[in-house]
Amino acid sequence: VINPNSSATMTETIAAGARAAASPGTQIVALRPAHGPTAIDSSYESYLAAAAVMELTPALPAVDAVVLAGFGEHGRDGLAEALAVPVFDIAEAAAHVAMLIGRAYSVVTTLARSIAPIEDRLKLAGLFDRCASVRACGWSTAAVDADPQGAIAAIVAQARIAVEADRAEAIILGCAGMAGIDEAIGSALGVPVVDGVAAAVRLAEAVVGLQLTTSKVCTFASPEPNPIIARTSP
Amino acid sequence: VINPNSSATMTETIAAGARAAASPGTQIVALRPAHGPTAIDSSYESYLAAAAVMELTPALPAVDAVVLAGFGEHGRDGLAEALAVPVFDIAEAAAHVAMLIGRAYSVVTTLARSIAPIEDRLKLAGLFDRCASVRACGWSTAAVDADPQGAIAAIVAQARIAVEADRAEAIILGCAGMAGIDEAIGSALGVPVVDGVAAAVRLAEAVVGLQLTTSKVCTFASPEPNPIIARTSP
Amino acid sequence: VINPNSSATMTETIAAGARAAASPGTQIVALRPAHGPTAIDSSYESYLAAAAVMELTPALPAVDAVVLAGFGEHGRDGLAEALAVPVFDIAEAAAHVAMLIGRAYSVVTTLARSIAPIEDRLKLAGLFDRCASVRACGWSTAAVDADPQGAIAAIVAQARIAVEADRAEAIILGCAGMAGIDEAIGSALGVPVVDGVAAAVRLAEAVVGLQLTTSKVCTFASPEPNPIIARTSP
Amino acid sequence: VINPNSSATMTETIAAGARAAASPGTQIVALRPAHGPTAIDSSYESYLAAAAVMELTPALPAVDAVVLAGFGEHGRDGLAEALAVPVFDIAEAAAHVAMLIGRAYSVVTTLARSIAPIEDRLKLAGLFDRCASVRACGWSTAAVDADPQGAIAAIVAQARIAVEADRAEAIILGCAGMAGIDEAIGSALGVPVVDGVAAAVRLAEAVVGLQLTTSKVCTFASPEPNPIIARTSP
Amino acid sequence: VINPNSSATMTETIAAGARAAASPGTQIVALRPAHGPTAIDSSYESYLAAAAVMELTPALPAVDAVVLAGFGEHGRDGLAEALAVPVFDIAEAAAHVAMLIGRAYSVVTTLARSIAPIEDRLKLAGLFDRCASVRACGWSTAAVDADPQGAIAAIVAQARIAVEADRAEAIILGCAGMAGIDEAIGSALGVPVVDGVAAAVRLAEAVVGLQLTTSKVCTFASPEPNPIIARTSP
Amino acid sequence: VINPNSSATMTETIAAGARAAASPGTQIVALRPAHGPTAIDSSYESYLAAAAVMELTPALPAVDAVVLAGFGEHGRDGLAEALAVPVFDIAEAAAHVAMLIGRAYSVVTTLARSIAPIEDRLKLAGLFDRCASVRACGWSTAAVDADPQGAIAAIVAQARIAVEADRAEAIILGCAGMAGIDEAIGSALGVPVVDGVAAAVRLAEAVVGLQLTTSKVCTFASPEPNPIIARTSP
Repeated sequence: VINPNSSATMTETIAAGARAAASPGTQIVALRPAHGPTAIDSSYESYLAAAAVMELTPALPAVDAVVLAGFGEHGRDGLAEALAVPVFDIAEAAAHVAMLIGRAYSVVTTLARSIAPIEDRLKLAGLFDRCASVRACGWSTAAVDADPQGAIAAIVAQARIAVEADRAEAIILGCAGMAGIDEAIGSALGVPVVDGVAAAVRLAEAVVGLQLTTSKVCTFASPEPNPIIARTSP
Repeated sequence: VINPNSSATMTETIAAGARAAASPGTQIVALRPAHGPTAIDSSYESYLAAAAVMELTPALPAVDAVVLAGFGEHGRDGLAEALAVPVFDIAEAAAHVAMLIGRAYSVVTTLARSIAPIEDRLKLAGLFDRCASVRACGWSTAAVDADPQGAIAAIVAQARIAVEADRAEAIILGCAGMAGIDEAIGSALGVPVVDGVAAAVRLAEAVVGLQLTTSKVCTFASPEPNPIIARTSP
Repeated sequence: VINPNSSATMTETIAAGARAAASPGTQIVALRPAHGPTAIDSSYESYLAAAAVMELTPALPAVDAVVLAGFGEHGRDGLAEALAVPVFDIAEAAAHVAMLIGRAYSVVTTLARSIAPIEDRLKLAGLFDRCASVRACGWSTAAVDADPQGAIAAIVAQARIAVEADRAEAIILGCAGMAGIDEAIGSALGVPVVDGVAAAVRLAEAVVGLQLTTSKVCTFASPEPNPIIARTSP
Repeated sequence: VINPNSSATMTETIAAGARAAASPGTQIVALRPAHGPTAIDSSYESYLAAAAVMELTPALPAVDAVVLAGFGEHGRDGLAEALAVPVFDIAEAAAHVAMLIGRAYSVVTTLARSIAPIEDRLKLAGLFDRCASVRACGWSTAAVDADPQGAIAAIVAQARIAVEADRAEAIILGCAGMAGIDEAIGSALGVPVVDGVAAAVRLAEAVVGLQLTTSKVCTFASPEPNPIIARTSP
Repeated sequence: VINPNSSATMTETIAAGARAAASPGTQIVALRPAHGPTAIDSSYESYLAAAAVMELTPALPAVDAVVLAGFGEHGRDGLAEALAVPVFDIAEAAAHVAMLIGRAYSVVTTLARSIAPIEDRLKLAGLFDRCASVRACGWSTAAVDADPQGAIAAIVAQARIAVEADRAEAIILGCAGMAGIDEAIGSALGVPVVDGVAAAVRLAEAVVGLQLTTSKVCTFASPEPNPIIARTSP
Repeated sequence: VINPNSSATMTETIAAGARAAASPGTQIVALRPAHGPTAIDSSYESYLAAAAVMELTPALPAVDAVVLAGFGEHGRDGLAEALAVPVFDIAEAAAHVAMLIGRAYSVVTTLARSIAPIEDRLKLAGLFDRCASVRACGWSTAAVDADPQGAIAAIVAQARIAVEADRAEAIILGCAGMAGIDEAIGSALGVPVVDGVAAAVRLAEAVVGLQLTTSKVCTFASPEPNPIIARTSP
């Protein structure tokens, strides 16, 4: 599991979520870039993070699959090129699982500015047809940290609109998982809630179990590298 | 695993495929309707089979998930309503897995008349955006049985067109799995081949492992049954 | 006209509606399956009904066209295969007529769970582009029977939202026709109201008059039947 | 039936086709503009013709419906506004009928430059989803007149590609009907052939029989005319 | 710049707007048809105007590009055929510019009946994907003239809904530009406002500067004219 | 003009092209990252380059607009966030211009693996509806350098298929401009050829001339930066 941002604590949270979701025999290795933004709230930061993730690939430990744990962020296709093992984006993984259990799904994310990148990711993944809506609760990551209960109320409120007005039948959390949020939505609305990291870990197990990996026939073929000019200063 | 047709031998073949694909701890129970068509090559037969599958549901053994092993056939949404456990259609499952490992996928099926129903199933599942093509090898099931090597050659030929002209990067087998076909396509074309039964079994394990099941909030809510007039003769 | 459910009274109502809509020279024969659900409120029941309709086909009287009088229900494509005469689904027929007289149309149906199957039918028929919305009045068939005036008010309320918010310019009744409902909507909203059975009967006359029938070149070719295992008990 | 071009002979041909297709009780009145292009092979001419058709509306005889007999040409929506009776475009009418009898349809027209306008008309009518292709035989109207047998061969050749490569199951003639062309395509390819004028006449009968007409609630409401500056010279 | 209606004052307003938007070296020639409607509020009038515009083409002065200054109106493709210089429709031009500066755009027009033609134009131009909405302020041109301040308030109100509910990030004025409206929207909502005439003039300069013009290879090839029957009376 | 790769010679070529396309009063400043790949042939390299471009933004000279001169590459949306001036991606710019002068356009690029990223960029930009095809000539950048005449022949061959089979009416060069290629395609096929850098420069002039810039209301609002962990070694 690669956390695209450089925050140690967020990486630990993601690792814990991945371990909780994994099957008994699965071992989780959690990585993060040594540099780059500690949180990603814009495309600008997303590109910096994606490049930092690319730089991790030459020294990646031997694993069976990689989960890229950024919701709607860049980097998936570059990893798919660079690696022989399959790569799982958590936004895509959550949508795959949601479509398997419900007629339509909605995503609830943090800020309104993240709606467009998430829609873009789902469109490029060919998973947007059954997306009922992408909604923002309007709380930044910092605000969520300062008042988790308030954030949960805001997220449940958006999930309710998604179910009642947009006709979503499953909810995807498009933001860092918070303790208790699944239960809060489930009990309030009676719909299943999909967590991207958990979904990606289980789909990774499924694809590895099928002995399949990324097709290397064209788009994701291993790139023949061009010369790279190194930095002269950090 | 429910085979929608009533053929005992085909049910055994599907069960064997499902067992080969399953994780160690997963137990496969293979079922088939007691009546109905022994093979399904038309919508007419597909409806008869779907109804026969519906009739299986009241007496279904206790399972964690159901795989409906008919490619492009009817019945999935009725099962999703009737059952508390999640339901996995093999055409959908194969497309989900193919999209996780390749930019675009093609399906190779038996007869041209099956192209439309398969396209319909993929469209309704919201998985058609990244479908490069659905192609038919032109061999009926009976013809395949009579000359398996010839059938493999015909399937590989269509898969080649899918990869070279339609830009598919993964191939889904839209017909009963044949020994050696994966290897034949893989060695000839260098693309991954997805088998629907295997994909559905592994996705079922993933969703069950996530402790998720079909959303019952609207479309797939358990139906309140209307009175049924029984048959007066078999 | 085939009513896919087994209710005698509903079949009579449909027959009366068909006769009222037909041209002077057209003779209506109304049929229903001898068994199966007496009303269809789920996909589960829809498959049972579709199979029962398939079983009617061998003994069908000599007719020029068949109208399948279930709104959003299964069975149309199986009939199109099995029969030499053209087949008209009432949901499709209503949408064709609505598109001929208005920029966009909405469907008002009974329960929310029926929205998805109706959308599916319209999508597969290639008629969804100009569908402004499918809305549910929230009254079950039983509730409608118990309080027709209340049901009409609920339907008119949804039709009003369709016209004013969704910009529908014609309304399709996606539920059993009720006396007075056309007039109620028409006088309240000033938009044309299309009844599926009437639309299908008139389109059937048109296609028969053009001496055209279902194309048998591929998808709807007459199926070569596979062996069917008979029931051993009713 | 309004022929949008000013050719007397083509108007007679269209009138004859409409009369042959009409039900016994239907009376056909054929009209054409008193001025404007005698044939329409461009958007430029199509606009001139559409305006000339608009000018016919104030003095239109009392009819139950109007058929606009130009394939892919402009004018339909202006007529729908100006008239209280329903209006039937022959390209749309042909597509409606083709979709009722086949999975997908193709249009075969004259010159390649007409492909785009026909696609546009079908898209705006919401009927493009099931259009397999629009193909041009490459013969201009004049060339068709000079060598009808050659033209038929060219049309059948394009129809064959439509059926075999594009998977069309019905063919629409997007050019002036020629004697024998239906039979030539039918016998060569075994698919139904839809003529736009005939389809429009029968659909007009159907809609009039349903006592429906154009919705006047918004888009096609009768326009409140602005002052018009008259021509000072012919 | 061709104003498709015959109003002299509106032509002057458009000419002034075009001149204000043009680069220093660009010279604006404003034309209008000698006859036809003085304002265009329906498809009926739009066809009359389009034909009158076509009649202008033989005597057009030598220009580098033509701007067709009708929002959502007909005629663009006929001009593209008839002229060697490139043609710019103001609705298309505004959408191109809006897409270059914002994620999604909305159009605010006059009456609800104009929504459909504007949507049609944007769809045919391939520019509808990023259209958040087309909204009508409900004021006719006459009403706007009588009470400009009231009209501005109504337009700003619709633009606010477009930004807040439809998630538009740029607003296109789909009606005759009014002094102060840009500033009113900009200060109230903080989004850029695109005027179609200005956008078209600048895009015309860009395309002319690139030494490009309309492709004449197929759809917009110069038409080979058919004989035209002249009017016998004005 | 920012060249996303770090090649000095390619930056000079792009600068020369931009200067040749610019209006007399426009001054071109060409920039490139100080580090990163010298050519971009994969998503992996594209992310590295995008991040290097992001790092240029704090010290960008005062300009009126930025052109990002990578075809189908990442970075546009991050620049749009970070900068107050408008940003022009050359793939998008070329498509805008092509749609203004032709019914449909095709892109001819270098290697097949670049087709998917270019399609993705056009889809996200909402410009894919009128894209007839993206085709690859199969020559790598190195191969083009070694044998320019051969490359031109390969590109013209693909452009010919685009025009004749895909019905493109304009061609976009999705690879570094080569002397003579416009003329070669133009004389061979008679269709206009659009160069992305030239198109972007002229569209930038147009938007700046309209006094418009990127909407900052939501998606492209200036990001509130999160803490960034610096590199400890180059």
